[in-house]
Amino acid sequence: MSTQKLKVIPLGGLGEIGKNMLALEYADDIIVIDAGLMFPSEEMLGVDLLIPDISYLLQRQQNLRGIVITHGHEDHIGALPYILPQLALPIYATKLTGRLILAELKQRRAKTRTKINVVHAGSKVTLGNFTIEFFPVCHSIPDTMGLIIRTPIGIVVHSGDFKLDYTPVIGEPADLSQLARLGAKGVLLLLSDSTYVELPGYTPSEQVVSEALDHIMLGASGRVIITTFSSLISRIQQVVDVAAKHNRRVFITGRSMEEIVPLAVETGYLAIPSGILCCFDELKHLPHNQVVILTTGSQGEPTSALVRMANRSHSQVQIVPGDTVVMSATSIPGNEALVNKTIDSLFRQGANVIYAKLSQVHVHGHGSQEELKLLLNLVKPKFLVPIHGEYRHLSLHAKLAQSLGMPGDNTFVLEDGDILELGQESGKVSGKVPIGNVYVNGLVTGEIDSAVLRDRKLLSRDGVVMVNLVVDAQKGGLIGRPRIITRGFIDAWESGVLIEKSQDVVIAALNHDRKNLFRRGTLATRERSNLETKIRDSLKAFFYKETHRRPIIIPVIMEVGKPSMEKIPSTNYETLNKFV
Amino acid sequence: MSTQKLKVIPLGGLGEIGKNMLALEYADDIIVIDAGLMFPSEEMLGVDLLIPDISYLLQRQQNLRGIVITHGHEDHIGALPYILPQLALPIYATKLTGRLILAELKQRRAKTRTKINVVHAGSKVTLGNFTIEFFPVCHSIPDTMGLIIRTPIGIVVHSGDFKLDYTPVIGEPADLSQLARLGAKGVLLLLSDSTYVELPGYTPSEQVVSEALDHIMLGASGRVIITTFSSLISRIQQVVDVAAKHNRRVFITGRSMEEIVPLAVETGYLAIPSGILCCFDELKHLPHNQVVILTTGSQGEPTSALVRMANRSHSQVQIVPGDTVVMSATSIPGNEALVNKTIDSLFRQGANVIYAKLSQVHVHGHGSQEELKLLLNLVKPKFLVPIHGEYRHLSLHAKLAQSLGMPGDNTFVLEDGDILELGQESGKVSGKVPIGNVYVNGLVTGEIDSAVLRDRKLLSRDGVVMVNLVVDAQKGGLIGRPRIITRGFIDAWESGVLIEKSQDVVIAALNHDRKNLFRRGTLATRERSNLETKIRDSLKAFFYKETHRRPIIIPVIMEVGKPSMEKIPSTNYETLNKFV
Repeated sequence: MSTQKLKVIPLGGLGEIGKNMLALEYADDIIVIDAGLMFPSEEMLGVDLLIPDISYLLQRQQNLRGIVITHGHEDHIGALPYILPQLALPIYATKLTGRLILAELKQRRAKTRTKINVVHAGSKVTLGNFTIEFFPVCHSIPDTMGLIIRTPIGIVVHSGDFKLDYTPVIGEPADLSQLARLGAKGVLLLLSDSTYVELPGYTPSEQVVSEALDHIMLGASGRVIITTFSSLISRIQQVVDVAAKHNRRVFITGRSMEEIVPLAVETGYLAIPSGILCCFDELKHLPHNQVVILTTGSQGEPTSALVRMANRSHSQVQIVPGDTVVMSATSIPGNEALVNKTIDSLFRQGANVIYAKLSQVHVHGHGSQEELKLLLNLVKPKFLVPIHGEYRHLSLHAKLAQSLGMPGDNTFVLEDGDILELGQESGKVSGKVPIGNVYVNGLVTGEIDSAVLRDRKLLSRDGVVMVNLVVDAQKGGLIGRPRIITRGFIDAWESGVLIEKSQDVVIAALNHDRKNLFRRGTLATRERSNLETKIRDSLKAFFYKETHRRPIIIPVIMEVGKPSMEKIPSTNYETLNKFV
Repeated sequence: MSTQKLKVIPLGGLGEIGKNMLALEYADDIIVIDAGLMFPSEEMLGVDLLIPDISYLLQRQQNLRGIVITHGHEDHIGALPYILPQLALPIYATKLTGRLILAELKQRRAKTRTKINVVHAGSKVTLGNFTIEFFPVCHSIPDTMGLIIRTPIGIVVHSGDFKLDYTPVIGEPADLSQLARLGAKGVLLLLSDSTYVELPGYTPSEQVVSEALDHIMLGASGRVIITTFSSLISRIQQVVDVAAKHNRRVFITGRSMEEIVPLAVETGYLAIPSGILCCFDELKHLPHNQVVILTTGSQGEPTSALVRMANRSHSQVQIVPGDTVVMSATSIPGNEALVNKTIDSLFRQGANVIYAKLSQVHVHGHGSQEELKLLLNLVKPKFLVPIHGEYRHLSLHAKLAQSLGMPGDNTFVLEDGDILELGQESGKVSGKVPIGNVYVNGLVTGEIDSAVLRDRKLLSRDGVVMVNLVVDAQKGGLIGRPRIITRGFIDAWESGVLIEKSQDVVIAALNHDRKNLFRRGTLATRERSNLETKIRDSLKAFFYKETHRRPIIIPVIMEVGKPSMEKIPSTNYETLNKFV
């Protein structure tokens, strides 16, 4: 039996929710589980996306054996378009997940020759020292898998994102007896979803949503407009089924909803009885009590179909009194304000809006406390690493396991970058791999430069003031008055007088110290910097006195009459272009 | 009997939560109820505060009779420092509320000679056609009042911010029989709090919090660190009482907590047994299981005492394993991320953190559905105007009244600025008073200029690029190379090459169109604008191609050699200063 250690290295998703990625390393083999993206928080101004830092993997390319994907949500697949061009690893994923990965790669125009190997429940894949078996779990997207990973020192179970649902809408309930048999044999490590560890009890079955929708469609005298996540295909199935029961036809609107429905039908995840879907021409002539509209916009996204309806800017659907709108989703943290604004606008248009606080029109896709306990009880792992959560979730999950009798030394609350070295009897965090804040901003992918973010923050508070002046390099002193231009600093109607005064302030400050500041001849670096400091300090004090604001002040000093200066040659566009 | 109408004019707090203000107008008399502030949402970049638009009141100064304040929360008193200098109206408020108003006026250095008239439960004040009687209600600050307002056309009941608590910690439960007697006589209009209309059932009594705190202090082997809103004086009382029961001494930290405790003791709202409070020198020597620390920071405010503890930067208290931290508050919408970050940091330091999701360590201060129904049932108003809520709350509150039998025509879902004209038999919205977004940004109070906010938004996304060039007014054409300066646009290490290339782009673009762009002689406005457009367009395309970002581009063209241009006179600082 080997004496080598198994290394467990979270590269994303532990300590923050999103951009999930985990590496398992044994001897010369590394496998990677998931590769997700994360949307930035408010203070990361101008950042589009965050992705895991893969520098550890890049240094060990020759040991990488493959990427295993548990399911097709963006926080598990969204980093692939950015990572695969650097790491051309084979991918292992189920059918739907694979299709979603392809769509993602295409949308981001990722250049990669990576192969996607399609697996299914029960598939076994051997990657070096690891043999991975896929087992189905219930989550808010079909084809989600948990993983049973056999390693030389024992079995690792990865829960995937999961909840227990004995009556799922799509697919089969998880095979708990398989996990129980595994538990009886002995499992070394459980990696388990911590997202909803704060919630007592069990997460309800999707069936309760069908009942709520049934009740709503029965009672609604007008149209029923339903929004949900487009990847929540089982919810779409529920909407279609309940609509069919009530002889309502379904009109689909919103880009991602229009894309996912044919894909899900084609791959067999969605079954739509013929004659249920309707096109816009049919919709126009249907009585309102025979209509269901399925739409994007569950997160209040400003350009989504539902928000356009709420703002009277949707070209096909206007909200009228008598409409019932169902928000069959929860607000992702950070989206609450947009969602609430949308609900308010819908009420204002006369709709009756039903959302999760008022009726059980949504259940989430992660297990609550009792399900986490059940999994621990069945799998009976020696060690637990809580995954998929912010720090408090991971801590509470470890405490939960301890409350079931697991020794505190056997639970590991890790954060991204920690290297957990696990033997058969004990484990310890032996070090840290480098983890930076890798972001995507436009075309640029890299570590966030804190100076850039700090400037954006300052710019967003009180704006910017540019002070431009021309210095006579031959005689010393200013030519003309400074030009002062502002953006985001002060209202146009107030700025006229203030700007004029501020020009005087600059002139006065410079003249006051004229002898020290100006000399004949080209400005040396030190002189230039003295001038800039003088301008900045005088304006800073002036603006604060007048407005209590602190804009960024940028002095720009142009010199004319330098001996070395001459008119630039009249380069033509073609010759210059090659440097561009 | 009068045939004149009663006008109900919400000036803040309807449609948005915060900056509450409502005017009642009858004949030549206007009274104002509350004058609160609101903290801005994320997209109002750089804005400090929002306050109600009082232009309608300013136009009718001679009719204004007074401002009645229901309680001392900032969303009900916080606008007074900005409003009173313009409207020197007498204020009517209870003792604690009056003290908090004085503190607010002092803190903001408001110049006003306004008199604060102290009232108490049962006080009656006549202001022109209105007679206002104060009745006590339970809320999350002591001394909160509801109002019974007698007008020539009937009785108006204003609920204040209220919940029903038959076992309040401070004060008496509301006198429901008084309201029932009033209801039996006939109430024209109920103005009622809508904040928690989404919640079914009753809001629990504050007593459940005492039980939870008791349980926590009993079980904690180390220190118990509790944070709550400093204005929630009854919660402070509960903490002190439970600490006393468990022979723990209480150390108080954080500016607003250190300020409120003596004020509340002095005014008689807080009773602290002698020997319970302890100073830092005593704290250092007490065993941990004899300590309670009461601290600010319930909203994760970055400079608060609790956040400094969580970040190891508090000078007196460091978190150690064994500490229990209790978040005895809810996160105000918008603060969730900061609160969660604080909880995560506390767990990371080894504390056990207990918060509202895990245990009932907080109950909120507004009534739920059953309490709203009870109030409607007792008061039996002819008309209802839901107040204190976003649009969905007001809509749901109107629906709730309708579900109890009130005709739809008798419920009025108003928004700020609506003028509701109410007679004894019917009412209608007859118009709108001007309502602007009045903000405080530094020293400036005024309407938000959407151009300024738009610029701040753009600046915060991709930063700013300034292009400075000097044009020879005599000969036409550029002098020297353009200077290009950026802020918040791109990392320093990347910017060198990009800036150089972008200078070439500008030169090439201008030279390409040299004949049209440059003429001898001073630039006319049109020529200047053509040049600026050329610069902006060429750089916009270049930067987008290279980075996919869209910074604000600001061209600044300085001219030298103008016939009219001469060296500015060497003004000295003293003479210029008078214009500043």
